[in-house]
Amino acid sequence: MSQSPTPAPIGPPDATRVPRYAEPATFARLPRIDQVSRADVAIVGVPFDSGVSYRPGARFGPGHIRASSKLLRPYNPAQDVSPWNVLQVADAGDIAVNPFDLGEAVQQIDTAITEVRSDGATVLTLGGDHTIALPILRSLSRDHGPIAVLHFDAHLDTWNTYFGAPYTHGTPFRRASEEGLLDLERCLHMGTRGPLYADSDLDDDARLGFAVVRSDDYEVDGVRGAVDRMRARLGDAPVYVSIDIDVLDPAHAPGTGTPEAGGLTSRELLNTLRGLNGLNIVGADIVEVSPPYDHAEITGIAAAHVAYELLSVLAKGRPA
Amino acid sequence: MSQSPTPAPIGPPDATRVPRYAEPATFARLPRIDQVSRADVAIVGVPFDSGVSYRPGARFGPGHIRASSKLLRPYNPAQDVSPWNVLQVADAGDIAVNPFDLGEAVQQIDTAITEVRSDGATVLTLGGDHTIALPILRSLSRDHGPIAVLHFDAHLDTWNTYFGAPYTHGTPFRRASEEGLLDLERCLHMGTRGPLYADSDLDDDARLGFAVVRSDDYEVDGVRGAVDRMRARLGDAPVYVSIDIDVLDPAHAPGTGTPEAGGLTSRELLNTLRGLNGLNIVGADIVEVSPPYDHAEITGIAAAHVAYELLSVLAKGRPA
Amino acid sequence: MSQSPTPAPIGPPDATRVPRYAEPATFARLPRIDQVSRADVAIVGVPFDSGVSYRPGARFGPGHIRASSKLLRPYNPAQDVSPWNVLQVADAGDIAVNPFDLGEAVQQIDTAITEVRSDGATVLTLGGDHTIALPILRSLSRDHGPIAVLHFDAHLDTWNTYFGAPYTHGTPFRRASEEGLLDLERCLHMGTRGPLYADSDLDDDARLGFAVVRSDDYEVDGVRGAVDRMRARLGDAPVYVSIDIDVLDPAHAPGTGTPEAGGLTSRELLNTLRGLNGLNIVGADIVEVSPPYDHAEITGIAAAHVAYELLSVLAKGRPA
Amino acid sequence: MSQSPTPAPIGPPDATRVPRYAEPATFARLPRIDQVSRADVAIVGVPFDSGVSYRPGARFGPGHIRASSKLLRPYNPAQDVSPWNVLQVADAGDIAVNPFDLGEAVQQIDTAITEVRSDGATVLTLGGDHTIALPILRSLSRDHGPIAVLHFDAHLDTWNTYFGAPYTHGTPFRRASEEGLLDLERCLHMGTRGPLYADSDLDDDARLGFAVVRSDDYEVDGVRGAVDRMRARLGDAPVYVSIDIDVLDPAHAPGTGTPEAGGLTSRELLNTLRGLNGLNIVGADIVEVSPPYDHAEITGIAAAHVAYELLSVLAKGRPA
Amino acid sequence: MSQSPTPAPIGPPDATRVPRYAEPATFARLPRIDQVSRADVAIVGVPFDSGVSYRPGARFGPGHIRASSKLLRPYNPAQDVSPWNVLQVADAGDIAVNPFDLGEAVQQIDTAITEVRSDGATVLTLGGDHTIALPILRSLSRDHGPIAVLHFDAHLDTWNTYFGAPYTHGTPFRRASEEGLLDLERCLHMGTRGPLYADSDLDDDARLGFAVVRSDDYEVDGVRGAVDRMRARLGDAPVYVSIDIDVLDPAHAPGTGTPEAGGLTSRELLNTLRGLNGLNIVGADIVEVSPPYDHAEITGIAAAHVAYELLSVLAKGRPA
Amino acid sequence: MSQSPTPAPIGPPDATRVPRYAEPATFARLPRIDQVSRADVAIVGVPFDSGVSYRPGARFGPGHIRASSKLLRPYNPAQDVSPWNVLQVADAGDIAVNPFDLGEAVQQIDTAITEVRSDGATVLTLGGDHTIALPILRSLSRDHGPIAVLHFDAHLDTWNTYFGAPYTHGTPFRRASEEGLLDLERCLHMGTRGPLYADSDLDDDARLGFAVVRSDDYEVDGVRGAVDRMRARLGDAPVYVSIDIDVLDPAHAPGTGTPEAGGLTSRELLNTLRGLNGLNIVGADIVEVSPPYDHAEITGIAAAHVAYELLSVLAKGRPA
Repeated sequence: MSQSPTPAPIGPPDATRVPRYAEPATFARLPRIDQVSRADVAIVGVPFDSGVSYRPGARFGPGHIRASSKLLRPYNPAQDVSPWNVLQVADAGDIAVNPFDLGEAVQQIDTAITEVRSDGATVLTLGGDHTIALPILRSLSRDHGPIAVLHFDAHLDTWNTYFGAPYTHGTPFRRASEEGLLDLERCLHMGTRGPLYADSDLDDDARLGFAVVRSDDYEVDGVRGAVDRMRARLGDAPVYVSIDIDVLDPAHAPGTGTPEAGGLTSRELLNTLRGLNGLNIVGADIVEVSPPYDHAEITGIAAAHVAYELLSVLAKGRPA
Repeated sequence: MSQSPTPAPIGPPDATRVPRYAEPATFARLPRIDQVSRADVAIVGVPFDSGVSYRPGARFGPGHIRASSKLLRPYNPAQDVSPWNVLQVADAGDIAVNPFDLGEAVQQIDTAITEVRSDGATVLTLGGDHTIALPILRSLSRDHGPIAVLHFDAHLDTWNTYFGAPYTHGTPFRRASEEGLLDLERCLHMGTRGPLYADSDLDDDARLGFAVVRSDDYEVDGVRGAVDRMRARLGDAPVYVSIDIDVLDPAHAPGTGTPEAGGLTSRELLNTLRGLNGLNIVGADIVEVSPPYDHAEITGIAAAHVAYELLSVLAKGRPA
Repeated sequence: MSQSPTPAPIGPPDATRVPRYAEPATFARLPRIDQVSRADVAIVGVPFDSGVSYRPGARFGPGHIRASSKLLRPYNPAQDVSPWNVLQVADAGDIAVNPFDLGEAVQQIDTAITEVRSDGATVLTLGGDHTIALPILRSLSRDHGPIAVLHFDAHLDTWNTYFGAPYTHGTPFRRASEEGLLDLERCLHMGTRGPLYADSDLDDDARLGFAVVRSDDYEVDGVRGAVDRMRARLGDAPVYVSIDIDVLDPAHAPGTGTPEAGGLTSRELLNTLRGLNGLNIVGADIVEVSPPYDHAEITGIAAAHVAYELLSVLAKGRPA
Repeated sequence: MSQSPTPAPIGPPDATRVPRYAEPATFARLPRIDQVSRADVAIVGVPFDSGVSYRPGARFGPGHIRASSKLLRPYNPAQDVSPWNVLQVADAGDIAVNPFDLGEAVQQIDTAITEVRSDGATVLTLGGDHTIALPILRSLSRDHGPIAVLHFDAHLDTWNTYFGAPYTHGTPFRRASEEGLLDLERCLHMGTRGPLYADSDLDDDARLGFAVVRSDDYEVDGVRGAVDRMRARLGDAPVYVSIDIDVLDPAHAPGTGTPEAGGLTSRELLNTLRGLNGLNIVGADIVEVSPPYDHAEITGIAAAHVAYELLSVLAKGRPA
Repeated sequence: MSQSPTPAPIGPPDATRVPRYAEPATFARLPRIDQVSRADVAIVGVPFDSGVSYRPGARFGPGHIRASSKLLRPYNPAQDVSPWNVLQVADAGDIAVNPFDLGEAVQQIDTAITEVRSDGATVLTLGGDHTIALPILRSLSRDHGPIAVLHFDAHLDTWNTYFGAPYTHGTPFRRASEEGLLDLERCLHMGTRGPLYADSDLDDDARLGFAVVRSDDYEVDGVRGAVDRMRARLGDAPVYVSIDIDVLDPAHAPGTGTPEAGGLTSRELLNTLRGLNGLNIVGADIVEVSPPYDHAEITGIAAAHVAYELLSVLAKGRPA
Repeated sequence: MSQSPTPAPIGPPDATRVPRYAEPATFARLPRIDQVSRADVAIVGVPFDSGVSYRPGARFGPGHIRASSKLLRPYNPAQDVSPWNVLQVADAGDIAVNPFDLGEAVQQIDTAITEVRSDGATVLTLGGDHTIALPILRSLSRDHGPIAVLHFDAHLDTWNTYFGAPYTHGTPFRRASEEGLLDLERCLHMGTRGPLYADSDLDDDARLGFAVVRSDDYEVDGVRGAVDRMRARLGDAPVYVSIDIDVLDPAHAPGTGTPEAGGLTSRELLNTLRGLNGLNIVGADIVEVSPPYDHAEITGIAAAHVAYELLSVLAKGRPA
C-alpha cells in the first residue's frame, strides 16, 4: 500500500454493494488503524464501567456505539462536509483496562491514549463511564496545557469522592481541576439538570472552573442562545468536548446509568455541536452509553450521530 | 428518638456511603412513616388498576416509582430548595385495596387517605389508576370545601360511565363535580390532546368546571404561556394537583395504559410544575404509571422527578 | 364523489360497551370493507419489507398499526371533525405480495391498489416499506397525472439503485420522477436530516422535483414556518402524502428500520399534518413501521395518530 | 354430529401464495364464523382479566394467541390428522365482557358461550383469566351434566374467595364443584407445583373432586406415566380441558400472571395432550396468556400449539 | 410486643386481604428483622457486582429477588412444611458495600454477616456476585471450622486471579480453600458445564477440594443420580449451599452475567435441593441474578423459589 | 510472520488480562483470517435473510453470534479437547450478498465459500437464513460428491417453492436433492416437530433422501437413542451438519423466525453433537438466528456453544 505524497483517506465499503449489516464491525465501517498508514482521527473504545455509582453496563458501550454507527453515510449536509473524505478516520479498537482496580485503570487509559496520540491523531473516545475523562485530560494537558472542558451532561461530575474513592464517574473534573489540567476561565457544563447533593455543589463547581448552561435554558432560549453562551465561554482555548449521553432526556437516551428527566432532545444536541465550527478541538469523548438499558439502539444511534457531528466539526476546521 | 421542639427532618442515607441501589425501598430512600415522629408530607401508594379501560399494570405503579426514585438527591437547584431538609417527608407505604369491587375500593382509599391526613400530613399519592383521585378529593373536600383541580392528562377524565360503572379511571372528575367537590371556576386540564368521543365531551367538561390548556398550546406558546394561564385559572384556591403520566408523550412515558401521541416533554412538565410556587397545594397524585409497558424506568423516572418537583413546591411554600 | 340517499357511515363499536382490547382487529375497529356498501376511504395494508436495506420487520407493520389504533375515538377536537361520521372509512385488509420478487411485488401492489380505487375510495396505505409508494403513485398518476408528493422522511429516497436493484425502499421517488409521475414544481421532503452519500444527492434530488424542509428547520422556525413552506410548495396540485415514520426522532419512533437521530416530535408531525386542510389529497401512505423494534406500541400509536390526522383532513375537505 | 351432503371445510389461505404475516387476523388464519355455513369447532376469545390477583394483561390474550397462531399448518404428523380438513373450525371472535363487574361478566360469558354452542359447535375458548372457566362449565353442564375437568395449571384454583370475591381466577373450580357441575370422581389437576396457603388446601381440593399429577411427577415418571394416570382418572366421562398456560415453566411461558418455577416443558404438555385421543372432549379453554409479559411470542406460540393439539384430538375423535 | 416463652413466628400479610403487589417490599413480604424479637433465619441482601468479569447488574439482584418473591405462599406441599410457621424468617435488608474497593468490600461483608449471625440467625444471602461467598465462608468457618461447600454453578469459580485481582466472582473458592475454610473431602460442584481455560483447571479444582456433578450427568442419570452423589459427598459435614443462578440454563435464567448453554431446568434444581433434607446446613447464598438481563422475572422467580426450597429444608431440619 | 514447519495456532487474547467485552469482535475473539498464515477452520458469516417466509432479522445473525461467543474459553471438558490449540480457527468475516436478488445471492455465496475453501479450510458458516445451505452444498459437492446432510431443524426444509420462488429458507434440501448433491441413503433430519402442509410432505421428504428423528423421539428415547440412530444413518459418508437454531424450543431460542413449541433443550442439542466424534465432517452451518427477537443473547449463546461443539468435534477428529 503506497502512501506517498498524500493518499486519499480510506473510507468505508460502498453500502450499495456491501450491506451495512455485514462486516466490518468498526465505527461507521471505517478502516482499522492497522489498515491505514496514518490517522487524523482515531476512534478509541474504553470498555470500562467500574466507576459507576448506579446502573452499570457502559463497559459494553464501545461495541454498541460501533454497531449503532453502521448507517452513517459520508456526507453531512448540515455542515456541507464529508468527514472521512477530508480526514483519515480510523478505528483503533479498544483499550484493555483492569476492571478491578480503578487506580490502575486510570493509568492504563492515560498510557494507551497517549500512545495513540503519539502519531498525531486526534482521539475521539467511546466510553465507558465518565471516569475515563480524567486520564484523557492528563494526556492532553501534557501537550496543550490547561484545557477548556466543554461538558455535556445531566450532572456536574465535580463531586469529591464516593465511598472514599477519588476516581469515579462523578469526580473526574474535580480531580482534573485540582491537578491544574483545566483552564479555569473556559470550562462549561451544558444541559445539566436534576437534583444535587447540596447548594454548595454549585459553588464548588464554579470554583473549579465551570460555568453552566442548564437544560432548562434551552427551553427558554433555544439552541441559538446556548450556542452563543458556549462560544463566548470557550473562546480560542484548546477545547476538550466530553459528552455524557445522559445529557439527553431519557426518552432520547434510555440506555444510560443515571438518567434524569427533563433533558435535551437529540436535535438540540446535534445542533449545538454544529456551533463548535472553527474552535480548537483537541479531543473528545462520548460516555455512559449502557447497552443493557437501551432499546432498538435509540441511545446508540444518538451517540453515533454525536460522534459524526464531532468528526464533521473536526473536518470543517482543517485548512483547505 | 427525641423529637421535642423541632427536630430536623430525617432524610435518606448518605449516597456516598450507602449505594443507592441498596435498601431502603422507600420513595427516594426516605424514612418510613413509622420511623419519624410526624410527617409534613406523606407519600402513599395505591396499588390499584381495576378502573382501567385499556392496558392494565398500574397496580405495580407505586413500587416502580419508588424504585425509579433512588437517584433523587436532596437539593433542587431549579428551585433553590432542599425539600427534605425543609419538610419531613416520609413514605407511608401502600393502601390495601380490594381489586375486585370498585365501590369498596373507592371507600377504602377514602378511609386510608383520611387516616394519613389526620396527623396533618399533606398526601402525595402514587397510583394506581386515575379512579383513585375521586376518594382523595372526597377526603380533601371535607376539610377544604370545593377544590381547584389542576389536572395534567392527555384525557379529560370527565366521562360518565363505562359499561355502566360510575367509578373508573375515565370518570373521577365528573363524579367529583357532581358531588360538589370542585371549585367550578378554578379547575383546569393541562396537556390534553387526541380524539374524544364527541364534541359534546368538551361542552360537558366545561360545564363540570374545567378550562383547558392543550398540549398543542405548548407548541405555540411554550411553557411560559401555559404557566400564565394556569396561575390565572387557579388563583388562590386550594389546589389539588392530579398528574396522569400520560400527559407526557409516549416517548417520555411509554409505561402507561392509554397513551396518545403528541404529548408534553418531561422538561415541559417539570418547568410547568415549577410555576406552582406559592400556590395553596392541598394534595397531589401521580397516576397511571404501568410498569409492564415501561422500559429502563423512563416512565418511572419521569414520575419520580414530577414528585420531586411537587415536593419542592410544597417546600418553597412554607414560611421560613 | 357522489353519495346520494347516503346511508350514515358505519363506525366502530361503542367502546363503553365493547372493550377496545376486544375484536374487531381492523383499523380503529372500523368495519371491514365487505361490511359496507361503499367506502370513501379504504385502509389497505401492504405487509412487505423486501425492499429494506437495513433493519427489516415492516412486513408486520399493518397488523401492528391496526393493533395500536384501538384507542382512536370518533371526534378530533384539534380539527373539530368526526372523521368516520363524515366519511365511510373501511378496512380493506392486506394485499398479498410476493416477498421474493421485487418486480412482481411492485406489479401486485399497483394492481391491488387500482382495484380498491376503482370503487372511488381514497386509499390510505399502511406499509410495509417505502418501496410500495412507487406502485401507488403509478396507479394514482394514471388518473391524476403528475402528482405533488409531500414526503415526510428522514431520508430523500431518491437514490438510484442498491445492489443494482431499481425497486427498493430508498429509490421510489427517483423511479416515480423518471416515469413522469411527479409534478416537478410541487414535490417536497419534510423532516430530512442525517448524513447522505454525497453532496450530489441533493442536486439529484432537486432535479427530480423536490424541495426540502429539514428537521433542523423546525428547530429554528417551528411548525408554523414548516407549514407555510409546505402550503406554498404544494399549491393546488393533487397531493400524495407519503409518511415514513422515521421522520420522527427515534425517541418517538424506535420501531423502524433506518432510524436517524435529530427528528421531529410526534406533536410537530401531527400539527404539521393539520396544515393540510383544504388541499387536494388524492392518497397517502404510512410506511416503515417495524414492530420487532417497537416498544409498548410507541411507534404504532404515532402511526395510528398520523393516520387519524390524515383522515381528519380528508373529512374536513369534503363539501357540506 | 351429522353433517350430511357435507361441504368440505374451509381452511386458511394458501401460505405459499398469501404471506402468513398478512391478513386475516383470525386464529390460524381460519375463516370467521360468519364466513362458514356452520362450524364443528368455534374458537372464541374472552378478553377479560378482572379476576386476576397478581400480574394483569390476559385481556390482551385472545389477540395475542391469534397473532401467534399464524404459523400453524394443516397437517399434524404427530397425530396423522389434518384438523381443519376434517372439521370446520372457525373463529367466532371475542365476547364483549364488562371489565368492571365480575358478576355481570360471568353471566355475559355464560350467555355468549351458550349462544355459540347452540349451533352445535364445540367451543375452544382463548382467555382471558381463569375466572372464565366457571361460566363455560355452567353452560356445558346444562347439556352434559357433571363434567370431568382436566385441569392443567401450576395452581389448584379451588380456593374460596379473595377479598371476599367469589368469582376470581383462583376460585372457578370450587364454585363449579359447589354448584354440582363437576364429576367428583373424574377431575384431575396436572402440572401443579409451588407453594400453597396451607396443607388444608390439598384436603379441600380432594373433597371438591380433584386428583393431582404434579409437575414433579413428570420428572420421575415422564409423560407416559402422566398420561396413564390421566386416562385412568378421566375414563369415559365428558371431559372439559382447561389449560392455564402457567402449567408451563416460566422459561416456556413467561407471559402469564402468576408464574411458578419448576413447570412443564412445552414438549411435555403437547405430548400429554396427544394422550387424550378417543376421549369425550366437550369443550376446552386456554387461559392466562398475558402478552405484556411475553417475549417474541414464546408464550403465544405455546398456547397456539396447545390449541392445535386440542383440535387434532377433536379431529381424531370423529368417526370415519 | 411480648415475646416470652416462644412466640409464634410472624409471617407475611394475608394475601386474600392485602394484594401481593402492595407493600411490604421485603422477601416474601415477611417482617423486617427490626419487627421481630429474634430470627431463626435472616435474609440479607448484598447489592454488589464489582467482582464480575462480564455482564454486570447483579448489584440490583437483592431488590429484584425480593420483588419476584411476592407470590411465595406459606405451605410447601413438596416438603409438607410451612417454613415461616416453623421458623421465624425475617428480612435484614441490604449490606452497604463499597463498590470501588474489592478488598474493603470483602471485609465489610464479613463484618456485616458476622453481625447478623451473632444473634443466632442462619443467614440466607441474596447477591450480588459470587465474590461475596468468600467473606461469608470466613465468617462461618470461624464458628464451624472447615465447611463442605455445595456449589451450584455453571462454572468452577476456583480460578486464581483476573487482572491480578484475588477477589472476584471467579475466585472465591480458591481463596477459601487456600485459607483453610473448606473441608477438602466434602466440597462439590453441581451443574457445571461449558468451556474452561485449560484441562489443568479441573486438576486444580480437585486439589482444592471439589468433586463434580456436571449438568450433563443430569441428562443421563436424572435428579435421583445427582442427589445420591450429592448426599454421599456431603455426609454429615456442616454445609454451605452456594447457588449461582447460572447453574440454570439461560432459558430458565437469562438474567445473569456469564450464561452458558446446556444448564439445568428449574425443576431439576428445585428437586435437587429437596434432597438436602436432614443435612446440616449452616448458611446459603443465591448469587449472580442480574436484573437488567432478566425478562418478566423469569430469573427472579427461579431465585425466589430456590430460596423457598432452602428455607423449607431448614424448616424440615429442626427437631419437633 | 514466519510459519515454517508448523506454527502453533493463534488463539484469542488472554481473558484474565483483556476483558472479554473488549475488542476484537471476531468469533470467540479468535484472529481474523488475514492475521494467520492459514486456517484449518474458517468461520464465515452470511448476513442474509431475503429467503425467510415469516419473521426476518437473520441478516443480523452473524454479528450477534459473534457477540454472544465472547465467553467461550479454550478447553472443552466434555470432549477433553482445546479446539483452538489443535486447529487454527480464524474468522473470515462476512460475505457481501445481494439482498434483493435471491438467484444472485445464491451464486455469490457459492463463489465466496468456494474461495475460502480453496485454501483448504473447513468452513463453519454463521447465517443468515437457511437458503444459504444450498450454495454451500453445491460448493462442497463439487469436491466430495454426494453428501450426507445432518439437518437439525424444527422443519423439513424440503418444500418445493414459495410464491413460485425456488430459492428460499424452506426449500434448500429439495433443490440439493434434485441437483444430486445429497447421498440419498445418508441424510437425516433431527428435532423436527410441529404441523406440516400435508402428509405428502413426509413422503416427498423420504424420497429426497431423508430419515427423521423427531423432537418427540427425544422425549421417549433420550439423547442416547437419538445419537445411535444418527450414527447409524450417517455411517462413514462425508457429512454436512446444518443446524437451524429453531431445532431448539422457543424457550431456548426465542430469537428465530419460525419458532415451533416442543423443541429440544440446549443440553440435548449439545450432547447430540458430541455424538459426532470421529465422523467425516466436511462443513457445517448454524442458521436462522434472528437477533431482533432474541433476549439477553439466549439464542446467540446457544448458537455460539453449538459452534464450539462442532469445532471440538473437528478438533477431536484430527490425527495426532
